[in-house]
Amino acid sequence: MPGGVVLTGPAMSEEVSVLFANDAFYTAFAGRDTEAMREVWSEKVNLRCIHPGWDEITGREDVLDSWAAILGGDAAPDIICHHASAIIYGDVAVVVCHEEIENAFLIATNIFERQGRIWKMIHHQAGPMGVRPRLGDAEAGPPVQ
Amino acid sequence: MPGGVVLTGPAMSEEVSVLFANDAFYTAFAGRDTEAMREVWSEKVNLRCIHPGWDEITGREDVLDSWAAILGGDAAPDIICHHASAIIYGDVAVVVCHEEIENAFLIATNIFERQGRIWKMIHHQAGPMGVRPRLGDAEAGPPVQ
Repeated sequence: MPGGVVLTGPAMSEEVSVLFANDAFYTAFAGRDTEAMREVWSEKVNLRCIHPGWDEITGREDVLDSWAAILGGDAAPDIICHHASAIIYGDVAVVVCHEEIENAFLIATNIFERQGRIWKMIHHQAGPMGVRPRLGDAEAGPPVQ
Repeated sequence: MPGGVVLTGPAMSEEVSVLFANDAFYTAFAGRDTEAMREVWSEKVNLRCIHPGWDEITGREDVLDSWAAILGGDAAPDIICHHASAIIYGDVAVVVCHEEIENAFLIATNIFERQGRIWKMIHHQAGPMGVRPRLGDAEAGPPVQ
C-alpha cells in the first residue's frame, strides 16, 4: 500500500485481504511456483481461466495444468503486477490490475471467493492493452507482505 | 437454449436468468440501444468495464458514457454472442462468452450481481482471441426470449 496510509475498518481490511490473495497469484506466477499457484486457486468451486488470446479453460485440473505448462516452459515470462484495485460484492471480490510482461502491458480481471477468512481465486482473464498505463508515484500495487 | 432441453430446479432457473441478463447486454449492444444498455448495468454498486485494448473505466457514468460513444459512433460494430455459459457464486454470477464482431472473435468475462429477482451487470472485460471458436451444433448461446 502507499506509505502512510492508515487502514481502519472491516471494509478496508477485506480489501487488503483480497489484494493479498491477488499478490499471492502474481508471486506464484513470477516465481514459477506451480505448487503456490495450486494454493491460490479454489478447490471448492468451478474455475475458469482465459489466458491472453486463448479460449477459456474450465475446471481446476485443466486450469492448473495450463499454469504448469506456462510456468514450466523455457519461455515463462517475467511478470510484475501494477495498480491492483479490488471491489468486494459480498463473498466475491473482483480485482483489476495491470500486468507488465517484458515491457508489454496487459490488463486482468481476477475474481476471488471468500472461503472463511481467506480469498481464493476462481477466475482470471488477461488481455493486451493498446495503451501503456502510467507508472510512478500513483503506483498502488498489491500490499507489501 | 438447445432444443429439447427441459429446465428443472432452482439452479437451472438461476442460470437461465443470468444468461437472460447477458443476452440483454448483447441485444442492447447489437441494437445500438444506449437506453437499454443503461438498464443492463447496476445502479447500486461500483462498476468497471474493460473494452478490448483499453484501460479500465470505473463508475457508472463513465462506463455508460463509453458505451454511448461506442454505440453512437459511425463505426459501431455488429456483434453476435456465442457459447455463453454462467457460473453462479451466491449473489454473483460470472458469464464467459465469445463475441463475434465482423468476423473477428473476442472472449468476454461478464459479471452480474443478483438484485432481487434479476441480475445486473457489474463488470465487463473483452479481449481478442488468437483462435476461432468452433461454431455449429454445439452452439449454446443465450436463451431465446
